[in-house]
Amino acid sequence: MSKFTKKRSRKSGLAPGTLVHIGEQKVSKAKITIIDYNDANCEIKSPASCEECYPYKDKPSVTWINIDGLHELPVIEKIGAHFGLHPLLLEDLVNTEQRPKLEDYDSYFFIVLKMLSLNPQNSEINSEQISLILGSNFVLSFQETEGDIFDPIRDRIKNNKGRIRKMGADFLAYSLMDAIVDNYFIILEKLGERVELLEDELVQKPTQSTLHEIHKLKREMIFLRRSVWPLREVLASLERDESPLLTPQVSPFFRDVYDHTIQVIDTIETLRDMLSGMIDIYLSSISNRMNAVMKVLTVIATIFMPLTFLVGVYGMNFKFIPLAEWLYGFYSIWAASLVIALAMLIYFKRRRWL
Amino acid sequence: MSKFTKKRSRKSGLAPGTLVHIGEQKVSKAKITIIDYNDANCEIKSPASCEECYPYKDKPSVTWINIDGLHELPVIEKIGAHFGLHPLLLEDLVNTEQRPKLEDYDSYFFIVLKMLSLNPQNSEINSEQISLILGSNFVLSFQETEGDIFDPIRDRIKNNKGRIRKMGADFLAYSLMDAIVDNYFIILEKLGERVELLEDELVQKPTQSTLHEIHKLKREMIFLRRSVWPLREVLASLERDESPLLTPQVSPFFRDVYDHTIQVIDTIETLRDMLSGMIDIYLSSISNRMNAVMKVLTVIATIFMPLTFLVGVYGMNFKFIPLAEWLYGFYSIWAASLVIALAMLIYFKRRRWL
Amino acid sequence: MSKFTKKRSRKSGLAPGTLVHIGEQKVSKAKITIIDYNDANCEIKSPASCEECYPYKDKPSVTWINIDGLHELPVIEKIGAHFGLHPLLLEDLVNTEQRPKLEDYDSYFFIVLKMLSLNPQNSEINSEQISLILGSNFVLSFQETEGDIFDPIRDRIKNNKGRIRKMGADFLAYSLMDAIVDNYFIILEKLGERVELLEDELVQKPTQSTLHEIHKLKREMIFLRRSVWPLREVLASLERDESPLLTPQVSPFFRDVYDHTIQVIDTIETLRDMLSGMIDIYLSSISNRMNAVMKVLTVIATIFMPLTFLVGVYGMNFKFIPLAEWLYGFYSIWAASLVIALAMLIYFKRRRWL
Amino acid sequence: MSKFTKKRSRKSGLAPGTLVHIGEQKVSKAKITIIDYNDANCEIKSPASCEECYPYKDKPSVTWINIDGLHELPVIEKIGAHFGLHPLLLEDLVNTEQRPKLEDYDSYFFIVLKMLSLNPQNSEINSEQISLILGSNFVLSFQETEGDIFDPIRDRIKNNKGRIRKMGADFLAYSLMDAIVDNYFIILEKLGERVELLEDELVQKPTQSTLHEIHKLKREMIFLRRSVWPLREVLASLERDESPLLTPQVSPFFRDVYDHTIQVIDTIETLRDMLSGMIDIYLSSISNRMNAVMKVLTVIATIFMPLTFLVGVYGMNFKFIPLAEWLYGFYSIWAASLVIALAMLIYFKRRRWL
Amino acid sequence: MSKFTKKRSRKSGLAPGTLVHIGEQKVSKAKITIIDYNDANCEIKSPASCEECYPYKDKPSVTWINIDGLHELPVIEKIGAHFGLHPLLLEDLVNTEQRPKLEDYDSYFFIVLKMLSLNPQNSEINSEQISLILGSNFVLSFQETEGDIFDPIRDRIKNNKGRIRKMGADFLAYSLMDAIVDNYFIILEKLGERVELLEDELVQKPTQSTLHEIHKLKREMIFLRRSVWPLREVLASLERDESPLLTPQVSPFFRDVYDHTIQVIDTIETLRDMLSGMIDIYLSSISNRMNAVMKVLTVIATIFMPLTFLVGVYGMNFKFIPLAEWLYGFYSIWAASLVIALAMLIYFKRRRWL
Repeated sequence: MSKFTKKRSRKSGLAPGTLVHIGEQKVSKAKITIIDYNDANCEIKSPASCEECYPYKDKPSVTWINIDGLHELPVIEKIGAHFGLHPLLLEDLVNTEQRPKLEDYDSYFFIVLKMLSLNPQNSEINSEQISLILGSNFVLSFQETEGDIFDPIRDRIKNNKGRIRKMGADFLAYSLMDAIVDNYFIILEKLGERVELLEDELVQKPTQSTLHEIHKLKREMIFLRRSVWPLREVLASLERDESPLLTPQVSPFFRDVYDHTIQVIDTIETLRDMLSGMIDIYLSSISNRMNAVMKVLTVIATIFMPLTFLVGVYGMNFKFIPLAEWLYGFYSIWAASLVIALAMLIYFKRRRWL
Repeated sequence: MSKFTKKRSRKSGLAPGTLVHIGEQKVSKAKITIIDYNDANCEIKSPASCEECYPYKDKPSVTWINIDGLHELPVIEKIGAHFGLHPLLLEDLVNTEQRPKLEDYDSYFFIVLKMLSLNPQNSEINSEQISLILGSNFVLSFQETEGDIFDPIRDRIKNNKGRIRKMGADFLAYSLMDAIVDNYFIILEKLGERVELLEDELVQKPTQSTLHEIHKLKREMIFLRRSVWPLREVLASLERDESPLLTPQVSPFFRDVYDHTIQVIDTIETLRDMLSGMIDIYLSSISNRMNAVMKVLTVIATIFMPLTFLVGVYGMNFKFIPLAEWLYGFYSIWAASLVIALAMLIYFKRRRWL
Repeated sequence: MSKFTKKRSRKSGLAPGTLVHIGEQKVSKAKITIIDYNDANCEIKSPASCEECYPYKDKPSVTWINIDGLHELPVIEKIGAHFGLHPLLLEDLVNTEQRPKLEDYDSYFFIVLKMLSLNPQNSEINSEQISLILGSNFVLSFQETEGDIFDPIRDRIKNNKGRIRKMGADFLAYSLMDAIVDNYFIILEKLGERVELLEDELVQKPTQSTLHEIHKLKREMIFLRRSVWPLREVLASLERDESPLLTPQVSPFFRDVYDHTIQVIDTIETLRDMLSGMIDIYLSSISNRMNAVMKVLTVIATIFMPLTFLVGVYGMNFKFIPLAEWLYGFYSIWAASLVIALAMLIYFKRRRWL
Repeated sequence: MSKFTKKRSRKSGLAPGTLVHIGEQKVSKAKITIIDYNDANCEIKSPASCEECYPYKDKPSVTWINIDGLHELPVIEKIGAHFGLHPLLLEDLVNTEQRPKLEDYDSYFFIVLKMLSLNPQNSEINSEQISLILGSNFVLSFQETEGDIFDPIRDRIKNNKGRIRKMGADFLAYSLMDAIVDNYFIILEKLGERVELLEDELVQKPTQSTLHEIHKLKREMIFLRRSVWPLREVLASLERDESPLLTPQVSPFFRDVYDHTIQVIDTIETLRDMLSGMIDIYLSSISNRMNAVMKVLTVIATIFMPLTFLVGVYGMNFKFIPLAEWLYGFYSIWAASLVIALAMLIYFKRRRWL
Repeated sequence: MSKFTKKRSRKSGLAPGTLVHIGEQKVSKAKITIIDYNDANCEIKSPASCEECYPYKDKPSVTWINIDGLHELPVIEKIGAHFGLHPLLLEDLVNTEQRPKLEDYDSYFFIVLKMLSLNPQNSEINSEQISLILGSNFVLSFQETEGDIFDPIRDRIKNNKGRIRKMGADFLAYSLMDAIVDNYFIILEKLGERVELLEDELVQKPTQSTLHEIHKLKREMIFLRRSVWPLREVLASLERDESPLLTPQVSPFFRDVYDHTIQVIDTIETLRDMLSGMIDIYLSSISNRMNAVMKVLTVIATIFMPLTFLVGVYGMNFKFIPLAEWLYGFYSIWAASLVIALAMLIYFKRRRWL
C-alpha cells in the first residue's frame, strides 16, 4: 500500500521551492557521470564533480549529465542554479512522487518518467523516478539510485552505433524515454506470464490464495497504469510541440514511443479485464464446490435417514411386533434397506446429482 | 450522512442575495486578523474591528484580512459592502455548502476551497469551507472557525522567509491554496494507513465489522473526492487565466498546486479501487468459510449416519439376529464401524475436503 | 414505473403541432393570474380571462402571467396565438413529458422545468412540468395544477422586497427557476434522511423489505437525476447567452442557480453511490447470517451424531456386551458423552465458530 | 441472437457497389407508390412502374415515391440510375443491416432509419430498415415490406390536413422521421408495461423464468438502443445543416424530433437501469429463500438431535439403568424432551429465526 | 494469453530503427508478387525478386506489390530503401504487434491492419498483421504468411470486373481494407453462433465448462475489439484527409468502410453485453440448484428426524411403557408416523417447496 501514499507530510507547511527529498535514501553519495559527444568525438567523465559539469552548459556538442542519488540536496541545488532551473522544478525532482509529466520552461523541457522493475523477492513492481532536463545541447538525467537500463544507449554512444552520435540532445532524450518504455514491455511480459499461471491454477485447483494473488496482480496493474497513463499525454505533446528544442526529424521517433505507450496501456487494460473475469470464475467455482458438497450431504442424509427410521421401528419394545419371531425377519429388513437405498441412488442418478 | 445534505431548506423561499448562515455555529464571535506587508515592513493587527480593515483596501502593500466565524452576518455584510463584493458572493460565503469553485468578478476573484481534517474520535473527515477574495493588493479569507493550517505561512510572512514578502497578493492566495492541498496529502496518508490495516484484517480475520469499516472508508473517499475534484478546474483556470490580477511569475506555482491536486485525485481513485477489490475479497472469504463449515458438516454426517444405521440394525428386536449370540459380535460391529469411518476419511482426504 | 413512460401513444400519427394534453387532468378549469409591476406600481388580477392578458404583451412594465391547468387547450391556443408562440412550442407545453430544455425563438425563450414534490403517502417523487416563456417584458408560466412554490416570489413582488421590482423579466424568470432548484434541496434532504434511516436499519436488522426500500430510493434517484441533469445545460446556456433578452447584471444570478444545480447533481450521485454500497452490505449480511445458521447446524450435528452412534452401540441386542453388567456402565457412557461434547465445544471455540 | 449478426458473409469478396439483398425476402414483388402534391393538387398512383417515376424527378411539385420490397434488385438499380444515386448508397439500401445514418451527397441526402414493431407472438422487437432519399423536390422511401406506420401522413396529404401540402420535400422527410420516432414511444410503453409486470412478479413469486424474462427484456433494450442511439446524431446534423435542401422553417421541426429521440434514449437508459436493479433483487431473493430453508433445517435438527440422543441413552442395554424400574420413568423422559424442545424454540424465537 | 503479450523483450536495448522480426516465423521464404495494371493492361509476376520491383516505383500505371513473409529482413530492407521508407516504419512492419494505425509520411501513407481468422482447432481468433504502403501509384502490402482473403480482388483486377482497373492506387488500398473489414463480419457471425449455442446450453444444462466457454468468448471479444477499435480512427482520417494521395471520388468508399467498422464495433459491444448477462444467469442458476438441493435435504430431515425420535422413545428400556403390551401398539406407532409425515408433506406443499 505504502507505495501509493508516500510520506509527503514532511513537506507540509514548508515554503514552496524548499527542497525536501521524499523517498528512501537509496545511495550513500550522489554520483555524477558526464558523457559529451558529437559525430566525431566522445568524452566520458565518471565520477565527476558538480563543478566539472558547468562548462558543458554552453558547449555546442551534446552533453548527457547523469546524476544518481537525490538525497544530496546541495549537489542538486548547485547544478540547478548553474543550469538556471526553476526552484519548483528542483522541488519536484527530489520529491519522487511525481506523476509522469512534461513542463515547458521555454529554454528547457522538464520531463518526469517512471522507470519500473520487478522485485524478484515479492514480485512487486518497484518504481524509480527519472527526471530529464532537455536543453538545446544537453540532457540532465536524475535518478534515485545507481543502476539503470540505459547501458545499451551508453554503448551506442561510445561505439558510435546507430544514428545517435549524428543527432542532437532531443534524440538523446528520445532514446532514454524509448528505453524506459521498452522496459515496460518486459514488465508486462512477466506479469502476463503470472496471469497465465494463475489462469491454469484457477481451472485446476483454485484456493483463497489464488484470489489474493489475483488481487495483488490487479493492484500491480493499477500501479502500472498510474505510471504509464500520464506518459501518453507527455509524448503526444512532445510529438506535436513546435519548440525550437525539438528538431523536426525527431518527431517521428516521438510518435513511435507514443505508439508503444498506447500499446502498453492497451495491454494493461486487457490484463485488467482478464483479471476481473478470473475473479468471476473464482467466485463461481466456490459456489460450484459448495453445491457439490451439499449434494453429497443430501444424498447421504436422504439414503440413511429413512433407513435409520426403519431399523428404529424394529427396535421398539412392543410386545407384539410383526415378523419379530420370523426366522428371516432380520434379513428381510436388510433387504428392504438395500432396496430403499438403491431406489434413492437411481433417483439421484436421474436428477444428475451423482 | 448528514454531511452530504446539510439543512439548506432554511434558505428556500428567501430572496437571492439574502445572507443565511448554513452550517453549525462554530465560534461565539467573529475574529478579524489583519496582516499587511511588503518586502520592507510587516504589520499585524489581531483582533481588529471591521472598520480597521477599510483603509487597507487601497493601500499598495499586500494585505491579508482573515475572518474566523461566519455566523456574525453584519460583520460579513459590512466588509462585503466596503470591498464591493457581489451579494450573491456573500450568500455563497456564509452558505458553507459550496463546491470548490472560482468566480471571476473582474476586479477580484472569488475562490471557494475545502479545508479538511480528520476527526480523531470517529476518524471521519471534517470539512471547513475557506473562501478567498483575491483583489489586486489584498486577500480576504473567510473561515468557519478559528484554528487553521496557515500558521507556517504567517510565520514566513513575519520572519520574511522565502519569497512571500517579495511577491504580490496572488502569491499569498497561492500559498494559502498550496497549504490546503498539502494538507490533503496528510489526510490521504492517514486514510491509506487505515486501508492497509483493513487489508491485514481482511487476510487474518474478516468480520462483518471489517466490511462496515471498508464501506465507511469508501464513503470518506466519496466525500474527499467531492471536495477535491472541482478544485482541479479551479486551479487549471488560475494557471491559464490572463487576468491582470495574476502576475506571470505566479503561473508556474499554480501549475504546481494543480499537479498536486491531480496527484491527490489519482491517489483517491487508487484507494477507491483498492477498497472495491477488498469488498470482493471479503465476500469471497465469507463464501469460503461457509464452504469449510459445510464440509465439516458433510464429513460428520457421512461418517456417522451409516454407522448409526448399522448399530440401529443390531438394536432391532428380532428373535433371530445373526451373530447376536457370538462372543465377539459386539467387537466385530465396533471393528466394522472403524473400517467404514476410516474408508470415509480416506475418501474425503482424496477429494481434498480435509 | 408508469412515471417513466407516460401514455404518449395517443399522440402517434397526429400532425406535428397538434395539441394533445398528455398527463392526468389535474384541475377542472384553467386559472390565469396576471401580475404586472415596475419599481413604482404592482397590479394583480386573479382570476383573469384570456383576453385580459393581451394588452400586457407590449406594456413596458414587467408582466408575469401564470396559467394553472393545461388541459383546456383553447386557452393555451388563444394565448399562444396572441403572444406569437410557435405551434411546436405549444405542443411541448401541453405534453408534460418533456425533459428540461431551453429553446431560443429569438424574440422569446422557451424554458421547460420540472417542479418536484414528495408524495406524503407513498413518499414517491411527483413531478409537475413548468414551462416558462421569457419575452422582453413578460414571463408566461404554465403549470399542470394549482398550488406551487412561488408564493415567496409573489410576496416579494407585492411588498417590493429585495431587488425584484427593480429588475426586468429576466430576473423574474431567474427567480422562478431559483425557487424550483432550491426546492430540489428540500427533496434531497428528505431523501437523504430516508437513506440515513435505511443505513441504520441495515446495520441493526436488515430484511428483504430493506432491500426493496433501497431499490425504491435508487429509482427515485434515477427519476430525480433525469429531471435535474438536463437543467445543467439549460442554465449554462442562459449564463453564457448573449441574447438581448438577458441583461448582463442577471448573468451572475444564472451562474448561481447553475452552481446550485451542480450541487444537486453532485448530491444525487453521492446518494446513488451510497445506495449501491448499501446493497453490497445487505447481500453480505445475508451471507453472514446464512453462515451463522450453518455453523449452529454443524455444531449441533457434530456433537450429537457421534453421541447418538455411541448410545446406539450400547443399544445393540448382543448377548455379550462389555460393561453391560457393570453397575456404573450407564454412568460411564454418560460421562464419555459429556467428555466428547466438551471436546467438540472446545474445538469449535478454537476455530472461533462459537 | 441472429438479429444482431445477420448473414453478411454472402457479401464478402464482392466488388464494392455490388447490390446484394441481405435480409429475408419479405414480399414477392416490389410495389411502387407515387404521391405527388402541391398546395392545390394531389395525385396518387399505386401501383406504379419504374418508368412512371422518371418524370417526377424534375417536376416542381413535391413527389413521394415509396418502394416496398428490396429484393427486386433491377427495380432498385433502374430507379437509382435515373435519380443519380451513388452505387454505394444503393448497396447500403438493400443491405438491411445499416445503422441509422445520414449521408450528404450534395444534391440529395441519404437517411437510414429503423422502423420497429413488437412481434405479438414472442414479443420480440422486429426491425425494418427504412431508407429515405431527400432531394430538392422529392423523397424516395425504401421499405423491406409492405405495411407501415405512414398512413396518417398519407391521409394528411390526401385531405390537405395540417401544413404538409404547403411545405416542401424536407417537411415530408421530417414527417416520415417523426412518425418513426413517435412509434418508438409505443414500443417503449409496451416494454415498460412488461417491466412493471416483471417487477410485481419479482416481489410476489420470483422464479428462474423471471430472470430469463428480465434478461430477454435487457436484450431488447440493447437492440432498441442500437437502433435509436445513432439517430441522435442524424437529427442533430439535420437541425444544424445549412444545405439548400433544408428550408429554415423546417429546422425547429427537426429539433423537435431530436428532442423526442433524446427522450426515447433517456427512457431506454432508465429501463435498463431498472432491469439491472431487478437482477440484484432477484439474486438476493434467492439467497433469502435459501436462508429460510436453512433455518428450518437447523431448527429441526437442533431440536430433534439432542432428543434422539436422550432416548437413545435409555435404549442402551445396561443392566443397571437409573429410573428404569420407576413407574413414571417413561413419562419423565417425555417431559424432559418437551422441556428441551420448548427451550430451543424460545431460543430460536429470541434470535428471530422463527 | 500469450497472444496479448508477445515476446517484445528481444527488442529491448536495441537502437531505434533496428529491424527485429517479432512473431513466429510462418513461411520459409519471403514471396513477392507484382500486379501492375491500368484500364487497358494487366501484368502479373509471381514470384518476383526484389530487384524486379524497383522499376514499378515510378511507372504511371497502378502497381500492387505483395510480400508474404516478414522474417527475411534483407528483402524488407532492400525494398524499404528503394521505395524510400522510413526506418521506424520498417521496424513497425516486421514487429507484428502493432495496433492498427495510419501514419502520414507525406509522399506515402503507412497503414497497419489486422487480418483475422478463426483457428478451426481451438476456435480461437488468429491475427495476422497486414501493412500497407500507399504511394501515389503503388501499394505495397506486407503479410506474415501466404494465403489471404484478397483473391477476389486479384480476380477482379485480372478480369477487369467492377471499377478497380479504372481507379488509382487509393482505390486498391480501399479494396484491400474493405476485404479485411468484410472478413470481420464472418468472424463475428461464427462467434455469434457460438454465443447462441452457449445461450441454449445455459438454459438447458449449465456446467462449469459453460462458464469457462463464456469467458473464453469474452476474451476473444476483447482481442477482437483491440484489433478493430483503432481502425475506426484510421478510416475516419482517411475519409477526411486532404492528401493528394487520395482522390475525392474514393472518399465515399472510405466512408463506407468506416460505417462497416462502426457496425463491427457495435456488434462486438452487443455480444460483450450478452456474454456479461449470461454470466449473471449462470451464477443465478448455480444458486437456484443449490436451493433445490437444500430443500430436498430439509424436507427429508424434517420428516424423518421427528419420526426417528418417536421410534427411539419406544425403544427405551423402561419397565413401564404405555401401550407396550397392547396388541396394536406397533401398528399405532406406524400410523402416527404416517400422519406426521403426511402433515409435513402438506406443509411443504403449501410453502411451495415441493
